[in-house]
Parts: sequence; C-alpha cells; structure tokens
Amino acid sequence: MTSVRTTTLGPESDLSQVFELAQQLRVDSVRASTAAGSGHPTSSLSAADLMAVLMTRHLRYDWNAPDNPAGDHLIFSKGHASPLLYAMFKAAGVIGDDELMTTYRRFGHRLQGHPTPVLPWVDLATGSLGQGIAYGVGIALAGRDLEQRPFRVWVLCGDSEMTEGSVWEALDKAGHRRLANFTALIDVNRLGQSGPTELEWDTGAYARRVEAFGCRAVVVDGHDLEAIDHALTVASDGQGPTVVVARTVKGRGASEVADKNGWHGKPLPQDMADRAVAELGGRRDLSVRGPLPPDDSPPPARPAAGPVELPRFEVGDEVATRVAYGKALAALGARPEVVVLDAEVGNSTHAEDFGKAHPDRYFQTYIAEQQMVAEAVGMAVRGFRPYATTFAAFLTRAHDFLRMAAVSRITLAVCGTHSGVEIGADGPSQMGVEDLAMMRALLGSTVLYPSDATSTAALTAAMADLDGIAYLRTTRGAYPVLYRSGEAFPVGGSKTLRHGERDHVTLIGVGVTLHECLKAADDLAAEGIRARVVDLYSVKPVDTDTLTRAARDTGALVVVEDHHPEGGVGEAVLSALAAAGSRPAFAHLAVTVLPGSGTTRELLDQAGISHPHIAEAARRLMKH
Amino acid sequence: MTSVRTTTLGPESDLSQVFELAQQLRVDSVRASTAAGSGHPTSSLSAADLMAVLMTRHLRYDWNAPDNPAGDHLIFSKGHASPLLYAMFKAAGVIGDDELMTTYRRFGHRLQGHPTPVLPWVDLATGSLGQGIAYGVGIALAGRDLEQRPFRVWVLCGDSEMTEGSVWEALDKAGHRRLANFTALIDVNRLGQSGPTELEWDTGAYARRVEAFGCRAVVVDGHDLEAIDHALTVASDGQGPTVVVARTVKGRGASEVADKNGWHGKPLPQDMADRAVAELGGRRDLSVRGPLPPDDSPPPARPAAGPVELPRFEVGDEVATRVAYGKALAALGARPEVVVLDAEVGNSTHAEDFGKAHPDRYFQTYIAEQQMVAEAVGMAVRGFRPYATTFAAFLTRAHDFLRMAAVSRITLAVCGTHSGVEIGADGPSQMGVEDLAMMRALLGSTVLYPSDATSTAALTAAMADLDGIAYLRTTRGAYPVLYRSGEAFPVGGSKTLRHGERDHVTLIGVGVTLHECLKAADDLAAEGIRARVVDLYSVKPVDTDTLTRAARDTGALVVVEDHHPEGGVGEAVLSALAAAGSRPAFAHLAVTVLPGSGTTRELLDQAGISHPHIAEAARRLMKH
Repeated sequence: MTSVRTTTLGPESDLSQVFELAQQLRVDSVRASTAAGSGHPTSSLSAADLMAVLMTRHLRYDWNAPDNPAGDHLIFSKGHASPLLYAMFKAAGVIGDDELMTTYRRFGHRLQGHPTPVLPWVDLATGSLGQGIAYGVGIALAGRDLEQRPFRVWVLCGDSEMTEGSVWEALDKAGHRRLANFTALIDVNRLGQSGPTELEWDTGAYARRVEAFGCRAVVVDGHDLEAIDHALTVASDGQGPTVVVARTVKGRGASEVADKNGWHGKPLPQDMADRAVAELGGRRDLSVRGPLPPDDSPPPARPAAGPVELPRFEVGDEVATRVAYGKALAALGARPEVVVLDAEVGNSTHAEDFGKAHPDRYFQTYIAEQQMVAEAVGMAVRGFRPYATTFAAFLTRAHDFLRMAAVSRITLAVCGTHSGVEIGADGPSQMGVEDLAMMRALLGSTVLYPSDATSTAALTAAMADLDGIAYLRTTRGAYPVLYRSGEAFPVGGSKTLRHGERDHVTLIGVGVTLHECLKAADDLAAEGIRARVVDLYSVKPVDTDTLTRAARDTGALVVVEDHHPEGGVGEAVLSALAAAGSRPAFAHLAVTVLPGSGTTRELLDQAGISHPHIAEAARRLMKH
Repeated sequence: MTSVRTTTLGPESDLSQVFELAQQLRVDSVRASTAAGSGHPTSSLSAADLMAVLMTRHLRYDWNAPDNPAGDHLIFSKGHASPLLYAMFKAAGVIGDDELMTTYRRFGHRLQGHPTPVLPWVDLATGSLGQGIAYGVGIALAGRDLEQRPFRVWVLCGDSEMTEGSVWEALDKAGHRRLANFTALIDVNRLGQSGPTELEWDTGAYARRVEAFGCRAVVVDGHDLEAIDHALTVASDGQGPTVVVARTVKGRGASEVADKNGWHGKPLPQDMADRAVAELGGRRDLSVRGPLPPDDSPPPARPAAGPVELPRFEVGDEVATRVAYGKALAALGARPEVVVLDAEVGNSTHAEDFGKAHPDRYFQTYIAEQQMVAEAVGMAVRGFRPYATTFAAFLTRAHDFLRMAAVSRITLAVCGTHSGVEIGADGPSQMGVEDLAMMRALLGSTVLYPSDATSTAALTAAMADLDGIAYLRTTRGAYPVLYRSGEAFPVGGSKTLRHGERDHVTLIGVGVTLHECLKAADDLAAEGIRARVVDLYSVKPVDTDTLTRAARDTGALVVVEDHHPEGGVGEAVLSALAAAGSRPAFAHLAVTVLPGSGTTRELLDQAGISHPHIAEAARRLMKH
C-alpha cells in the first residue's frame, strides 16, 4: 500500500521536496502514535510544514554532534507534539523507523510521551505548556551575552499556551533585550485540548501582542512553504527577536480529523491511520542534511578561574545570612561559569553584590520569577552555574518551572531570602513559610539552611559544585557569627554546638531558630537540664547519623523551625529517624498561626518558636 | 508647625479641594511610615492624586457598610502602598489619626505592612505583586455574570509589577470577556525597588500592551487631577475594561526624595518627614463622603438550593476518581453558590461535567492556572464556593496565588487530577508528584485523597462545607469501587478495610496505592501474615486515632504513596504519630526515581510502590 522513496534533502532542495518531507513527518507522526496507542498526532500535523522548512533550510545543527557549541537550539514548547519531533529525528537519521514505531511512549525507552533531555537532541523537558519560550530566551541570552556564540534559538509553541503569563514575561525579555538570535513559531491551529482556543485564528491579535511586547511578528499561512521560508529568513536577519505567527489546521492532511474538535491527544485508530497515511501520499524515506553550524571560531576566551576568597567573619559579630550570601556570591564570581539572576529585589537579597562585582554576569529579570528561573535554566543548558535569588515567598511563583527543571535534571542554585515570620513588620505576604516543603519535594534537590554568616558563605560556595537543584534559605535579620572562617560544612552534615556526656535532650534549630535553641539551652542549663544543640544546616540530605546519635544519647528531640510544620525540617528529621529505625521522644515547634506585622521577637513568640517555648517543649518531653 | 483644616469633601467638591485631600493623603503616608519606622511612603505619594480623585468622585462605596453588595471594590495590588490606603481610611472616617500613627505595622494591630482582610475594607491580602488585577477580574466577573450587581472593581497597580505574567493572563481575560466593570490604574512612577523599572516612563508601551490584550488604555499625567477625573469617567462608561496608565513621580511632593532612586521601602527620617509635611502644606483634617453605591435593587433571585443527589456507584465496578469527581460536581450544582473553573483540561479532569449541567456557572480560563485560581478567589470574595481544577502537576503554576489565598483566609476548593506516576505514557511532565507537599503546607488547608468513586463523590460534596483551601487529589485510571453509596467519609477520618484481632502489620495507602495495599495484603495472607489495610483518604487533618491504634495493635506501619517522599502522606503520618507519642516500626514507599513513559503497572513497579514492594516492605519490617 505504501511506497518508500529515498532521497536526501538539504538547504538547496526545492520546496516541492520540502513538501514531501513535511508529508513524511505527518505520516510518521500518525504511524508512531497509532502504534503507541496514545499521543498527539493532530497537534503534530499542524506544525509539520513549519518544521520541514526549518530543519531543511534554517536550523544550523549537526544532528551527529548535538554538543557542537555553535549549533542552533530547537525547543518544542508544545512538547505533546513529540511525534513530530521524533519524526524529525528519524528524517535527520539519528533514530530509525524501528525505534520510532516500537518504542515511542514505551517503558524504559527514550522516546517518551513528552521530550526530555534523555535524548541528546533535547535541551529541556517540556510538556508543561508556556515554558519553552522562557527557556529559549535564557539560552539565547547566554549565547549572545555570555558566550558570544553564533547560534540561534528556535521555539515551537502551540497557540493554547499563549494564554500562560509566563509566555509574556519571556517575550517581554526577548524584546527588551533585543535578542536577535531568538525566534518563536506559534502554531495557531485554533483548537485546544477541549475546544477552540481563546483567540482561535485571530492571528492579528497575536501579532499585536507580540509587537507590543517588543518583538517582531510575521504572520504567515503555516502551510505555505514559501511564506514560511521567507518568515524564517527574516527571523535570521539579526535585526531583532521574531515571532512567526502561523495560521495552521490541526490534523492538516488527514481530512477525517482536520480542524475537527475532539481529536486532541488521541491516536488515530488503525483503519483511520491507514487512510490518513494513504491520503498523505504513503510512507517515504526522505532524509535531511540541513545547514551545519558555522565554523566555531573560538569565542573570546572565558577568563581562567581565579581563586575564590570567601568573605571572613568574626565570631560574635552580628551579620545577616542574606548579607553573607551576597558577599560570598561576589567572591564566587572568580569562577567564570557563575552567573546570577535577580527579580528586582537584589538590594534586599544582596544578590546585587555580585552585580556590582561582575556586571556582565548579572541578569535583571525585573519582577518575573518564572522568567528568572527559566533564564537560569537556559544558562545552565549552556554550561553556566546560575544562582537565582528572590524572597523565599516569591519563589512559589516559579514552582512549576522548578519542577520541570528537576525533570530536566538541570543543575541550578536557588536562594530564597526573607524566610519565616522572622522578617517582622512587612507581614505575611512577604514571609516564606512554605518554601522548604516546595524545595524538598523536588526530585534530586539539595536544601541548605544556614544559621550564620560563615556557614552561609561556605554553603553558597558549595552549591557551585552540586548536581541538581540546590536551595539555600537565608534570613533577614542579623545574628551572631557562630563559626570561624575556614570551618568545613559538608552537604549532608550538621554541627553540634553544645553537647556533653549525659545530655538530657537535643534541641535542633536552623536559621533564626538555632539562635533561639542556644538561648533555650542556656535557660535549661540554669535549671540543671543539659541540652545538646544541633545546627541542622543541611536539611536535604540530612545528617541521619548525628540525629540517631542524639536520639540514642538523649532520647528526646525538639525540632524548631520558622516554617509551617508540613514538609519542612521537622518532617525531614522524622523521615530520617524513621528510616533509621530510631524512635526518640519528639517535639516539633513550627508556625501554625497566621502572623501579622510586628517585631521579630513578637512574631517568634506568637508562633511559639522562641526560646521560652523551646525550653518548655524540652521540659515537657522530659516529663514523659 | 502644622495647621489643621476640617471640611468634608464629596463628589461635588471642586478639584482644588481634591488636591488638598491628595496632599493630606501624602502627609499622612509620610507621618504614618515615619512613626512606624518602616513602610513605603514614596510609593504612596505617587498614587495619592489617583486615589484622591477616585475616592471623592468615582468609588461608589459606603465606608460604613463595606458589605453592601452593590458597593464597588478597591484592591491595592501594590500592597506596599498601604500608608496611602490607610490614609484613605482615615479620610473616610473609618479609622482615626491615632490608630494610623500608633498602630501601623505594630504587632497585634490590623494596619499591617501590607493590607489583609483583617480590615473590613480589604477584600484580599496583597503584597505578592502582580496579583491584584487577577483577583479584580474574578470579582468583576462574579459581579457581572453571577450576581448581576452594579458594582465596579478598581485595582491600583505599580508599574514594576506589570512584568509579572499573571498581569497579562488577567488583562487577557478582562479583554476577552469585555468586563466593562473593571478598571486598573497603573501608577507609572518609573522606579522599582532596586532601580528604574524596565519600561520607565514609556507609557505608550504600556498602552500598546493593554490594548493588544483587549482592554482600553487611557494615558494620563497621574498628577493632573482633571485628566484623572476624565479617565475615571471614561472607565465608568460601561463600554469596556479600562486601564488608566498614569505617569507619576515616586515621592511626589516631597522634593528631597521625589524621583530619586534609593527611597523604596524606606520611611523618611523624622527631620526629612517634618520638612516633607511642611512642603506638602502641613496636616489637614479633611474627610470624604464619596458616592454611595446605587440602591441595591435586589438582583435576580438566586435559585433555591435543590437536593444534591450524589452519583451512586456499584461496589466492584471500575471507575476513575476523576470521573466520580466530575459527576459529583455536576450534582453539587444543585447548590447555587457552587461555581467551577477550568484551565482548558475539563475533558480530562471531568470538570466539564459541571459545565454541561450548569454552563452559566462554569468558567473557562484557558491555559492560565494562576488566573484560574485568582478568579476562584475573586468569586469566593463574593460569596461563591469555587472549585478550581487542573492536573495536579500544573497546580504548581498557581502556588503563589494559593499561598496568598491562604493568607487572605479564602474558602476555595481545588482539585488536582492525574496524580503520580500512575498516569502512564504521558511521562513526568504531566505527573503530579509534589502537589501534596505544596497543598499540605498551605496554612489552614484540608487535603483529601480518595481511592474510589464513592468516597470521591462524598468528599467532593464535603468540600463545599469546609473553611479554607480544600484540596482533592484524584487519579487518572479506573479502579474498583470499594464503598457502598451512602457511606460516610468524615474529613479527618479513615477507613480500615482489612483488620483482625491480631494483625501483624498495617498497610496504609491512598489513591492507586490503596489498591496495591489490598493486593499486598492478599499476597501476605497467603503466607500467613495478617495485614491490616487503612484507606487514609483524609491526609490533612489525618486520623491520628486510627494510626495510633494500628501502631499499638500491629507495631509496624507501611505507608505507600504515589508522590515524592517529602511532604506527602508518609510524613503526615510520621508527624501525627510523633505528636501522639506513638513510635511503631515504619516503612515508607514513595517515588524517588525520575519516571519516563510506560504503563501504570510498569511505573508503579519501577517506583517501588506496587504490591510486591509493599509486601516485601511488610516482611522486612516484621523481621526487625
């Protein structure tokens, strides 16, 4: 029934051949999803012409050397169009028809339902819509401003996802920075998952929005290969960021489903698939050798790493951990791969200390936390070590981007400042009391929560050598420096600040509550109660050995945290103890009230996490 | 030094009097923040003219009857301008100068650093920027489409916050729905927290964006009272949603700080404050009686609540909990206060069942989860019981809105579907494996996770009578109905499905893992091991009595969940046991791998949460 025609297309192939490639991409999209029994063929068919022109004539990419640093980047923001992407891989010759037809969406295989970087040609996991443009802006920014590389970034988006605010955060940045190496292609196929999109085929509305946000809009018929080719030529002219608004038909080429609602995320049954393949002209075996990356004349050499001289603090001096973070970041700038991103609060978080020392590696995303994280992810894709910082409370804004970064196995440092009720008068909107739960629950994350300036500086530096998402939680107020400079703070460790042979109870604190634990230990000592005090600066991984030893030695643990009780330090400790089979008496003090404004002291007292409450909890535990 | 002039302004007062009011608002903003020793006077001074005109001539509001259902709503999206808002309260005569001067930002008082609904004139907590417009759209939508009330919604925004994507999600909805009762005022004062804003005084750029998103833009000099008055008159003409783009000067009227960087979030020292007050003409004692709400001719009567006839399911039939949720929602529509919001996945979440039954109370926000939650919050402000639904994974997008809803003490039902690796072939981007941690950590939340259709229907209905944020987690696949219709599922309860006199071990499951626990119990029974099985459908609050009884009776608990180990069911159980002083042997099976595509069975096995793993964990526990 099907004929197989073999030939290789390249930049000089005429558009009639590109049309054949587009039909092949459609045929393979239909076949792969029908074989898998799930997937999104109709969303693939609408964008096949866009991708056929792109890969044949414009995408400067060596499929056999995906790590070529001069190669373009292609991001499928509409990750559900994975059949199309994988059909492109087949056309590029990097996967075979057998892999496409027998492994797509199957367990243990790399052609997953939505693309992930398990595949060497995929930078980032997509599938949470509205993220691809944001990542693409980050990669383009790295290419232009950090690497001076010639690559371009191409992002294929769906039209449905244009209602995500994150898209407009990103296009605003593309426009504001005049990122001429950035192009988005919007596949305006009019139909979303459950019905027509909000703007349907109003390509003019998309274009007006894009232009209002500072990018160039080129409206095309997304099935007119010549128009597409022209649009992509314009996009490559180096004059500005471009968004190609392409009017398309969902299911294009398969008349039984074309422009019909009810066919999102459904493979065609075998009989319909057979008819669609026939209508599309049958199987082909075209391959593509598109343009290669320009010769990668070495970019301006990255300066050699200098020695990192961390700031030093005097024991007993009062220094906020956010201040120590800023100073440590500035010092860490001696490592040329370190970059810092701010969401317009750098003077509060002290991230701006880095900006003053290394302005060329400091990126202002203004108040757009999703974009800040997305740009950091994009820079991480290009090999940099980003530190993204804002108030701990406002990191919740970027939760989905952090979640997807974990799925992408991205390495990234995040710092949340102004944690807990400790911040005082600004009130609950500014208090991060949920961030530990959010950051601990990310796959493969590290969560650090230092209590003094010395440990903050050491852990800030340590984050530059960790894999995955590393989170540092800092505090607004100034508290005494506890440790001498040079002391080591291994990730997964802790510090026992008070201990004796026959301690009665162990007090475990972090951040401001460690200082309260020290005061509580003094209160208790006056009564003859010997309290061990542990600084549990590494919340994930947590120091199970020290915890179980404290449980064995003292039989009673009090954990105190400036965070809601769920998902934070207390539960981390409980999980570690349970896994180790250790079952001490346990008290958990955390924030269970809605705070208002007030002084730190008033708010710690109200939340029940100040030293009198800690001492009382210790006394109560010991009575049992 | 200061003179006090007393008079009462109203809609007929001329603009020279309104100017005096604006100066009073400035003076009081400076005085209050200086007295408090913190706060944002300069951000208040820029918007004083806008607010003076609004409250005198346009805001139809009875300050002494803030619950008047016909009254306008005013939202300070730039919540840090609280000195200005509280100065307005003073001018309206609802607080005194003494309260303003001695309690602002003090512990235990209502004039907090950022406004919260502790104040009767505040609908919602603000202070996380970029949220006010979104809430305002929700309130305006409720007023027009659900209540047919004449009120208008006014939102004061900063310019810095216009870079938040959520603003554009919201303006898109205002435009798309032609919400003529909605007006935003952007205080374009050019300076953000740490430096100039991205667009500075480019009011044309703001106007183009606003118009591209379907709203009317009116650009004014934000210190020209006549121009402001004209703009607000236009905004009130009932013709469409309006955004007033007001060019202003930060610190206007206090020449030592006006338009100067470095004065964000800083009170003026007393000497500077004295000079500023003098420059502003000294203290005044003007009061305002602005327009009152129109006579509240009763709107179309809300239909009486009909009986809620929950769907019934046959024990043993295989029904997905998401399906049961949809059917229960549709039934719950008999209660006229119930409204449902979708983010363009209603055919997957089954929220669309409600839409089919009650189209007038079903709101499509398209793919914009932040806006979905914000509209739900806005409707809750107006007394409705919203149910907002999307995939559990994508609720992370709205985390900051959920956090702030908790700060506002909003009552709201949220459902996350497609939880866990259970979903299968779509892969990790679509799998909610962090949502329990997020939802548990919200202040005052309820977290429910049913395992069968009967309990899902009962809990869906129960959510309509809970206070605070109630979360329901549902599952993609179909599993056997376990309970007869009519069985009660109290929040905070659980069901013990297998139990005997001398059980050896307790297996605790939720959702898909409960069904795995039942299979594991069968496996173990064949070996002579008697396993108790508990359906822990209420994760927060959790059934401590049943857990401690199981711990006492069996001495060994296995908790299994389709979620990351942090912050989920296992830690909820550990916290409950620890608080009760119960310390059984404990095993926790949860998702610690990055899944790919596959069948449910393959993915449960890979994650180590399927019945063979549960049985093995039970055996291991019993050996110890």
